[in-house]
Amino acid sequence: MKSTTTDDEVPIIDTDVHQMWESVGEILAYLPRQHHHRFNDATATRLPGVPSTPYGNPSGHRVREDLIQDGVRGFTSPEHLAERHLNPNGIEYAVLNGDALGLNLHPNPKYATALARAINEWVAHEWLPEDDRFVASIYVPQQCPEEAAEIIDEWEDHPRFVQVAINSAARELFGKPQYWPLYEAAEAAGLPVMMHVASDGAGISGPTTAGGYPSTFFEHHNIFPTTYMAQINSLICEGVFVEFPDLTVVAAEGGIAWAPHLMWRMDKNYKACRRQVPWLKKLPSEYFFEHIRFTQQPIPEPRNPEHLLQILDMIRADKTLMFSSDFPHWDGDYWTGSRQPGLPPVSDERRRRILHETAKELYGLPDDPSKLG
Amino acid sequence: MKSTTTDDEVPIIDTDVHQMWESVGEILAYLPRQHHHRFNDATATRLPGVPSTPYGNPSGHRVREDLIQDGVRGFTSPEHLAERHLNPNGIEYAVLNGDALGLNLHPNPKYATALARAINEWVAHEWLPEDDRFVASIYVPQQCPEEAAEIIDEWEDHPRFVQVAINSAARELFGKPQYWPLYEAAEAAGLPVMMHVASDGAGISGPTTAGGYPSTFFEHHNIFPTTYMAQINSLICEGVFVEFPDLTVVAAEGGIAWAPHLMWRMDKNYKACRRQVPWLKKLPSEYFFEHIRFTQQPIPEPRNPEHLLQILDMIRADKTLMFSSDFPHWDGDYWTGSRQPGLPPVSDERRRRILHETAKELYGLPDDPSKLG
Repeated sequence: MKSTTTDDEVPIIDTDVHQMWESVGEILAYLPRQHHHRFNDATATRLPGVPSTPYGNPSGHRVREDLIQDGVRGFTSPEHLAERHLNPNGIEYAVLNGDALGLNLHPNPKYATALARAINEWVAHEWLPEDDRFVASIYVPQQCPEEAAEIIDEWEDHPRFVQVAINSAARELFGKPQYWPLYEAAEAAGLPVMMHVASDGAGISGPTTAGGYPSTFFEHHNIFPTTYMAQINSLICEGVFVEFPDLTVVAAEGGIAWAPHLMWRMDKNYKACRRQVPWLKKLPSEYFFEHIRFTQQPIPEPRNPEHLLQILDMIRADKTLMFSSDFPHWDGDYWTGSRQPGLPPVSDERRRRILHETAKELYGLPDDPSKLG
Repeated sequence: MKSTTTDDEVPIIDTDVHQMWESVGEILAYLPRQHHHRFNDATATRLPGVPSTPYGNPSGHRVREDLIQDGVRGFTSPEHLAERHLNPNGIEYAVLNGDALGLNLHPNPKYATALARAINEWVAHEWLPEDDRFVASIYVPQQCPEEAAEIIDEWEDHPRFVQVAINSAARELFGKPQYWPLYEAAEAAGLPVMMHVASDGAGISGPTTAGGYPSTFFEHHNIFPTTYMAQINSLICEGVFVEFPDLTVVAAEGGIAWAPHLMWRMDKNYKACRRQVPWLKKLPSEYFFEHIRFTQQPIPEPRNPEHLLQILDMIRADKTLMFSSDFPHWDGDYWTGSRQPGLPPVSDERRRRILHETAKELYGLPDDPSKLG
């Protein structure tokens, strides 16, 4: 397989970067006092009580070990993130998605709401002013969509909050009516809603599969994209994109190669079952292409790279697929000096769409990051 | 799209036919007296207490209405099944899979076991002796694998029971150790294990998705193949095919186009996570190709038929895909006079493999059905 043609002129928008705190004390500083009792150790790295996966990653660290230098983790300060990822990898914009989406699975909605607010403050004060290339996701508590809508309203005028982040796992499917206030607020703010895997099967989410819990991290990591399938199926079938025609949902880090299966199956069943969903005005796949966007990492790696190119055609990747690195996670698609690892050879036009243009259009980013405000 | 080349010389093995009773009194006749109290109405068509889907099929009947003639349902007697399906559609063998796999989700293991035994007796006495083209699945209670193994042992010498049938939905994933006695017995008997959708989300199974219950039959029907994905992932990751190298699992009526995604994802993750599954001796996709078989219906129908041909290549359909009609269900791939509806043009060799040879090899069927015994 030939390597991807290098085209250094294409600026890269990285749609999935996970900045983090050096210690949770950074978040505590923005959290109301009533929740401080949970923080026995402000130097810990994990938010107290926030559900995390029961599976141990056999690769040891959640992040690449070479990013931990001189005792400093290379993703916990704006300077280090720029030095170790943005500068060497030619990143024009990095969408900061943080590392706390497990809060969406916490059983206490007040704590989840307070945490989401604290994280937004932390991002707005500690990250966004520090580098023109940073844009970020607004955290909201998906388990209380009314509060989520309020938070979206509060931040919608900030030029560098470019989307709303929720978990892909949930207690209830995302098409259900209780979530619609969240979509209403996001659409009104002109912001896409990104769902991103975090802590599936923990907290108030159900088991990771309809058959219960996988046994290992490996088995779990193979199968959690089925949750994305269920969520997108629910969003389309329940008519979310009929009610909110300007809403886009980003499926981040959930794979892409299942999408043809789901689209075709929806369209075939629609012919027989459309009377159950009279609100739909066109084929389910049309809503899919118009309203769903994917982030690239982890890209499938079939032995025959032609198969991936065929999948890219099936999902109309020029319109739907956006580059992401998943920096600094251990399985990310990034390394210094490469310009878009992960993809087999694609046309320059397709490469430009994936690396840059689709994300630029979706997030409304100016060519000059310093002009964003 | 051109129609499939007709090749009337290829005999068809239909791997998914659903014969049924005219009324449950037929099953009651084979059921121990201690369970008779459940049968208030022996003229009913649904087995009492057996979980059924909460979703109403908007197409009205579970079966095609034109199969109900003169008040007789065309799939409740051997003669009618032959007249309305086997004869006009050129079926050499029909694998009778029945219509009661919901029993695998019943909370009472004793009742589930008694029902499975009664259904096997009914099939052995009322169906298999009536037409040389009939072969059938052994019903077992998957929720009690030890009893399942006993039942397999009891029927393994019957030449016309050619596989073991379980539900695709389950309380626990099929790779878990509690199921292994079932696989041990099936492998020893030389019988594949077929999983087939029935009543997902009902009885002791969990919700149909990790995000809970879909709202409509349409939404449910789109998404239940994710359960197959989870089950196959579990079977491979847990090492079932290492322990039982001669076992084949048939994924019946669960779709095919998700398989490339799952295989590629397993293989990619395996490189990082193999230390969690040291029992695996080769790539997960290799176990997939060797041990998993698909039945065709419902075949995906992408707008561009080339896309389906590409998927057939990705799943190595010559080896893995078997024709099925799903007769008499409303969404089946069958109609009188057609010889293999559903597929875009494929080579004669591929067509012969799908229509006939893969199933013939898997089930060990002789060219002359009367020789089967």
